[in-house]
Amino acid sequence: MSTERPDPTGAGQGPAQRGRPERGTSRRGFSRRGLLLGAGVGGAGVAAAASMGSALGWGETQPEVRSISYGAETVPFYGARQAGIETPAQAHAVLVALDLRDPTDPNSVTRLLRLLSDDASRLTAGRPALADTEPELAAHPASMTVTFGFGPRLIEALDPSAAPTWLKDLPDFEIDDLDPALCGGDLLLQICGNNPISLAHARRIMLKSARSEARPRWVQDGFRSAHGAQEEGSSMRNLFGQVDETVQPERGGDGNEFAVWGHPPQGFSSSLSPWVEGGTSLVIRRIRLDMDGWDELARSGKESSVGRDLSVGAPLTGTREHEDPDFEATSALGFPVIEEFAHIRRARQMAPEEQILRRGYNYDDPPSGERISDSGLIFMSYQADVERQFLPIQRRLAEGDRLNEWTTPIGSAVFAVPPGCQPGGFIGDFLT
Amino acid sequence: MSTERPDPTGAGQGPAQRGRPERGTSRRGFSRRGLLLGAGVGGAGVAAAASMGSALGWGETQPEVRSISYGAETVPFYGARQAGIETPAQAHAVLVALDLRDPTDPNSVTRLLRLLSDDASRLTAGRPALADTEPELAAHPASMTVTFGFGPRLIEALDPSAAPTWLKDLPDFEIDDLDPALCGGDLLLQICGNNPISLAHARRIMLKSARSEARPRWVQDGFRSAHGAQEEGSSMRNLFGQVDETVQPERGGDGNEFAVWGHPPQGFSSSLSPWVEGGTSLVIRRIRLDMDGWDELARSGKESSVGRDLSVGAPLTGTREHEDPDFEATSALGFPVIEEFAHIRRARQMAPEEQILRRGYNYDDPPSGERISDSGLIFMSYQADVERQFLPIQRRLAEGDRLNEWTTPIGSAVFAVPPGCQPGGFIGDFLT
Ligand code: HEM
Ligand code: HEM
Repeated sequence: MSTERPDPTGAGQGPAQRGRPERGTSRRGFSRRGLLLGAGVGGAGVAAAASMGSALGWGETQPEVRSISYGAETVPFYGARQAGIETPAQAHAVLVALDLRDPTDPNSVTRLLRLLSDDASRLTAGRPALADTEPELAAHPASMTVTFGFGPRLIEALDPSAAPTWLKDLPDFEIDDLDPALCGGDLLLQICGNNPISLAHARRIMLKSARSEARPRWVQDGFRSAHGAQEEGSSMRNLFGQVDETVQPERGGDGNEFAVWGHPPQGFSSSLSPWVEGGTSLVIRRIRLDMDGWDELARSGKESSVGRDLSVGAPLTGTREHEDPDFEATSALGFPVIEEFAHIRRARQMAPEEQILRRGYNYDDPPSGERISDSGLIFMSYQADVERQFLPIQRRLAEGDRLNEWTTPIGSAVFAVPPGCQPGGFIGDFLT
Repeated sequence: MSTERPDPTGAGQGPAQRGRPERGTSRRGFSRRGLLLGAGVGGAGVAAAASMGSALGWGETQPEVRSISYGAETVPFYGARQAGIETPAQAHAVLVALDLRDPTDPNSVTRLLRLLSDDASRLTAGRPALADTEPELAAHPASMTVTFGFGPRLIEALDPSAAPTWLKDLPDFEIDDLDPALCGGDLLLQICGNNPISLAHARRIMLKSARSEARPRWVQDGFRSAHGAQEEGSSMRNLFGQVDETVQPERGGDGNEFAVWGHPPQGFSSSLSPWVEGGTSLVIRRIRLDMDGWDELARSGKESSVGRDLSVGAPLTGTREHEDPDFEATSALGFPVIEEFAHIRRARQMAPEEQILRRGYNYDDPPSGERISDSGLIFMSYQADVERQFLPIQRRLAEGDRLNEWTTPIGSAVFAVPPGCQPGGFIGDFLT
């Protein structure tokens, strides 16, 4: 991470703050440590999540180590960049895509963004929204963040010249079986947090604020391991049982600075241009996992389809999760240990800019009929440029990836993620 | 709680145990403290939940108080009574009702119960199920419990003479708008825990084990505040923003012993007979909350409809949550402070046996169409006798309760809850 570009507010991507929300959230000045934690030390986005569980005042006076209330922890909403991107992934996500009722009326869009930014700033600080009808449900934000993403029609409404060229539906892939009701959207609200009740409240409040200007297009709920339920620093597991999100942008701490925000470290051989300073992009793919088919595979078959083992997520050429895979290694018979179409061989970085910050969630909806599960992965990735970073990887995977046999993308959306805003402003104000 | 009836295993309703699951769960001998904690000190079932967060070994050596992994905590499965009843309510619930494929074949039913008991005993201990296809997802049970409930056809299949008289659909109430797809069932699995990923795994494993003998009838997901996100000892809030489950069976610690298990304290003026020693009953009512209508009410209107304030849940005649309401108090104008049809006046105990142990969960499903929420309460209560304990309260509420204007029961089910089992046995073995 480059210290040449300090975030002037020190906010937006910092780790969770201590403090009782009713006293207001104290924003902190720039600190190297804050940024490092926020970026996920060691490249593992989840790593810092567990370390956020710092005790509140009352807990520290207790003689015995007991349950700690992280319910009051907050992540600053205001800042040069939005929260919820580099913020270590919280346990729960509620994704809401909205359609504008009148995409030709910039005033309506501005009103919408102003209202929702105000809601988000309050709710993430543990304070009720304006005219909040259930103010008590705002009390335990548990590191809630609200991240806005803009679809093509929303940017068009405000400033057609601002739209990045990559802001459009992904090309069709043969592996896709997309349900239009799970695709697209003019405005995305990514609401993440560690307390499901705060998320339910925030979703309702924000959909209520939006009601006159926009209607819900799709809503998806996702989860990872509960906050603090796993060992500190462990990666998430998806419902195939795989260790997921091991390899993330890194390069000595500058990884996200380049991959997500488009700023290469000095002397780096590639460049990217973010659509706007402090902005990035988000790709969401709802991917159904065929659990029944997967479970017919022997363990070794599961492992070779990815190229990593299931117990700790180590590459098949090693024993530890975070060691480098050896893609050249061959077995005694001369076959590659990591197969030609193993997921990690196909997904691995082939050009300097091919890095994406994955931040996905599992879904597990009630099954219907004779089915015993309706499970999958809400794949989400942040990158400065969809075309140059996400698409080459997705194309390779669509062309050949052992996992394709048991996975089917059923929803797809691309959003331009705007910069954060300052108190008094609103998300998207730079376009008006 | 009566010390005359110690649970011989000390298990089944104890609090969460410390210990790494891979070393096996150490069951503890009978201890007064264990039982008291398990029963929810002070009558508030939630109270003890937060106190379960005791540190694991590795946490205690850390100099700073940090996040604590409660993921490895387990609640014993085996015991004279099932877990998940007096167990302080965990953050998440997955409810699965199954229909038997052949309700006339006792062997099929026995096979089903044996398989599912085996799964439950392993998964709640943090161990993989037999032939578990995602064994790693079993590693963080986070106090998971699996509680079995039997519908009429299941008992009929094993021993028709054993069925309690109250085991049938509730009578029709005018307030109801029941969807048959959300009612009834031959076998209920109430899977509760603090880690959503373990619940997803358990649901799938158990539905897979059940597949040849039973099919899913309905599935419901519910949540309360995340584990440890609230202050220790605070009651849950439902999505109306109300403090809920304040008044629970008490009577000097003997409350659950009587209300849930049917054993009155010495000299008590009423008696109940449980359908079987160590058994009880469970009523599940899925109640839709009309959030839009509710939010048109002023705060005072919301408070008078229940008879308690919204900020701390105190009766309108007092200031603290756990003080007794004064149902005789009148305003200066001579009107009762707690209205005639306020929920707590209608629901309050009118006979010694009218006590139920409530253990509900919120639901908040993705809304469809123009709606902005699909929210409600999965009301759940345990009581020794549905007819004598639950029904009188429900009848009064159905006849007149201010809350009825904004609440609609849309699902309903009654289950006979069997006793626990011992290692080597299975839930329901006493019927075979
Ligand atoms: C179909 C569902 C998917 C599953 C179950 C899945 C699972 C995994 C797993 C288990 C790993 C190895 C551990 C890790 O580094 O995280 C991995 C790596 C990766 N996946 Fe996926 N993935 C899926 C889809 C995708 C998609 C759609 C993309 C992007 C287009 C993607 C991009 C990557 C990347 C970049 C890596 C790191 C590769 C490396 O080792 O350099 N994955 N995935
Ligand atoms: C319709 C949805 C319902 C809502 C939103 C609701 C909410 C509440 C609230 C806020 C209280 C006060 C605090 C407390 O003691 O928990 C309460 C009390 C109570 N409710 Fe409900 N409830 C509902 C349905 C029911 C049903 C169906 C029953 C049983 C048939 C029931 C039985 C009780 C009982 C026994 C009390 C304690 C009354 C007392 O103060 O002695 N509730 N409920």
